[in-house]
Amino acid sequence: MSKISPPTINADRLWSRHQDLARIGATPGGGVHRLALSDLDIEAHGLIAQWAEKRGFAIELDAIGNMFVRRGGADPAALPVASGSHTDTQPFGGQFDGSLGVLAAFEALEAIDDAGIETKHPVEAIVWNNEEGARYVPGLSGSGVYTGVYALAEMLASEDDEGVTMGSCVRHLHQALPEAGARELGTPLAAFVEAHIEQGVILEDSGNTIGVVTGMQGNRRFEIKVSGENAHSGTTPRSRRKDAFVAATDMAVALRDVFWDDDDIVRFTIGKFEVLPGAKSVVPGEVNFGIDFRNPSAETLRALGDQVAGVCGAHAGPCTVSVDEISSASPIDFPDDITNRIEAAAHARGYPSQRIFSAAGHDARYAAKICPAGMVFIPCWKGISHNEQERAERDDVVAGAQVISDVVFGLAIAD
Amino acid sequence: MSKISPPTINADRLWSRHQDLARIGATPGGGVHRLALSDLDIEAHGLIAQWAEKRGFAIELDAIGNMFVRRGGADPAALPVASGSHTDTQPFGGQFDGSLGVLAAFEALEAIDDAGIETKHPVEAIVWNNEEGARYVPGLSGSGVYTGVYALAEMLASEDDEGVTMGSCVRHLHQALPEAGARELGTPLAAFVEAHIEQGVILEDSGNTIGVVTGMQGNRRFEIKVSGENAHSGTTPRSRRKDAFVAATDMAVALRDVFWDDDDIVRFTIGKFEVLPGAKSVVPGEVNFGIDFRNPSAETLRALGDQVAGVCGAHAGPCTVSVDEISSASPIDFPDDITNRIEAAAHARGYPSQRIFSAAGHDARYAAKICPAGMVFIPCWKGISHNEQERAERDDVVAGAQVISDVVFGLAIAD
Repeated sequence: MSKISPPTINADRLWSRHQDLARIGATPGGGVHRLALSDLDIEAHGLIAQWAEKRGFAIELDAIGNMFVRRGGADPAALPVASGSHTDTQPFGGQFDGSLGVLAAFEALEAIDDAGIETKHPVEAIVWNNEEGARYVPGLSGSGVYTGVYALAEMLASEDDEGVTMGSCVRHLHQALPEAGARELGTPLAAFVEAHIEQGVILEDSGNTIGVVTGMQGNRRFEIKVSGENAHSGTTPRSRRKDAFVAATDMAVALRDVFWDDDDIVRFTIGKFEVLPGAKSVVPGEVNFGIDFRNPSAETLRALGDQVAGVCGAHAGPCTVSVDEISSASPIDFPDDITNRIEAAAHARGYPSQRIFSAAGHDARYAAKICPAGMVFIPCWKGISHNEQERAERDDVVAGAQVISDVVFGLAIAD
Repeated sequence: MSKISPPTINADRLWSRHQDLARIGATPGGGVHRLALSDLDIEAHGLIAQWAEKRGFAIELDAIGNMFVRRGGADPAALPVASGSHTDTQPFGGQFDGSLGVLAAFEALEAIDDAGIETKHPVEAIVWNNEEGARYVPGLSGSGVYTGVYALAEMLASEDDEGVTMGSCVRHLHQALPEAGARELGTPLAAFVEAHIEQGVILEDSGNTIGVVTGMQGNRRFEIKVSGENAHSGTTPRSRRKDAFVAATDMAVALRDVFWDDDDIVRFTIGKFEVLPGAKSVVPGEVNFGIDFRNPSAETLRALGDQVAGVCGAHAGPCTVSVDEISSASPIDFPDDITNRIEAAAHARGYPSQRIFSAAGHDARYAAKICPAGMVFIPCWKGISHNEQERAERDDVVAGAQVISDVVFGLAIAD
């Protein structure tokens, strides 16, 4: 195939689509609250499906609720070249986490379509389901089920805090999009690239526009249950208490010391910490808390993570404690072919770029299990994400989408 | 008036009434979950009103939802001699906290009635509203409003976690008891005595059956709000976080040190500690927690309580913190006349007794503002209370009720 210049994306259209999508679940604080498979998230899927319909792109849904927008290719045997991300957000999250990658992918399809070029491969924009893990645990469940990491039946049976199963929500999504064709789970892809805000400050600090993501840090997640005894706060002497809050705070402080690293690479977070029964005048008999630990080094993940149970046990005092590791993921490296293509595309467009490691987990982690994968980062303001204040500059959003479009195009016309 | 022997209570009837009342809101764990003015609590009021009706005792309700069961006296000008406690419980609380005092009071009325004695004063069993403060803050609101400590309108406007006002619940209570007469708030009492489980281990340790309560410790309650910034747990370096959980746990540990006393007299409790947004992969931007601090010494209450704001401020790190003192109560002493009568009654019945200080707050605290008041404690198993495992022995329950009956009777026939 002869050398064809990659099409230039339509920046105004892309930015306008960002405004449209951000209105679905918009919060007074300027963020977006659009939990996975909520009515709002299904509305977001519907909006993208409308855009696709107007362009004549096909829509497919799979059994776990992933949505695929498809522009066909010339070769019926060629696998789809895909890009995408997710539309669900954290509770009171931001406008760009997930949306950026979905809209960059969609723009790539439109830009190629505008140019009237028939690619060899089909090109696809994918909306992976329940990436955040805020409503249904674990996150990345759409890409995880698609790529065989998680079992479909188990994931559909998982319940949110109100006892609503993911399965019932996925049915609602299918009902809302009756025009969607069926997609088999695990259908192979030629490649997958994902645009995302960095959710860190490396690009902001360096002044570079494009982060060429070389890999992703691993993680281990734990749930800890501390059991003591409810007691009257006015009458029960300290010596007779089995105060689960006291024990759990001792554990939290001790764990913070163990996980301390002067280089500030280790990510150790206690973001969920429930004290029961939660009444002011009752010595709490139970605390449930979660640990989110991430690191690029498999060795550090092992060495520190393996200490959690011991540290908790050593600080239980008169209480008892149980520690469950609920999920873990190894660090991964993206293949050179994809990272080189991303770097070359940024260079060709004149965007300053640098190689970078992903500190967050993304759907590309699981997509990488079935095809060559990679990621494009753009800066976000102060690295703030999972927060209503999350912001990305229009020029950076456009640059990220252009690089995605160029890489998708290059892969789609390649043999 | 000639010396009349006080009537002996009916132990079987009293114990059977305890079983009946404990069935309303019974939990699988053997406790009672009967929040103030819930349907279950109103059902409990209704059961007592039924018993009263069968005996021909009058029922009155006041504007804040206190219920008064009344056996008339000979002298129309004589003020009522009252006893009682409350029917509401802590979430998943016990069978005896509150119920004991209500049923001891009711048994006193029945025992006097069984003996066919016309007392000079009316005698009353009072069910004070919302003692626990678990559903509506603050607690002791029924006795507090009746005695002028709290304003009626403000209390009726207070909302539970679901936004239901106390006023709407009080209306439901009135509707459920259409036969009840109206009681004016603040109607004077001749005296008030309250039976209660000790909720501590002093009587259990000493082997005494009756605690003659000489006074009540004071308390100060604080609400602390720690504000940081939500952030992504995978990407945000420690040095850039404003982690409200880290700051709040530092405050909690530092406060624990400040409030430490080798004598184990200080009661310092953090029972409510809410971490927001509460997602595992979000560095928490907000923590709200409560401090419940109690002590018999006014000086200690001042000296330690005044340090809360400073300690919190010193450990806020990159976060901000606000400290509000939401309530406080001074230590009180009950008058000798009442404590002497309680001690004499225990002695006359052959129950081993001792003088004791109340570590918990009770409705007698506020009743003491309008009349001579006192309290009778009985042992409870291991001092456990505000807990489904709360237990009291039948013999001790009977002894406590007998002392209440004897004291009420003695006051009711006195000039």
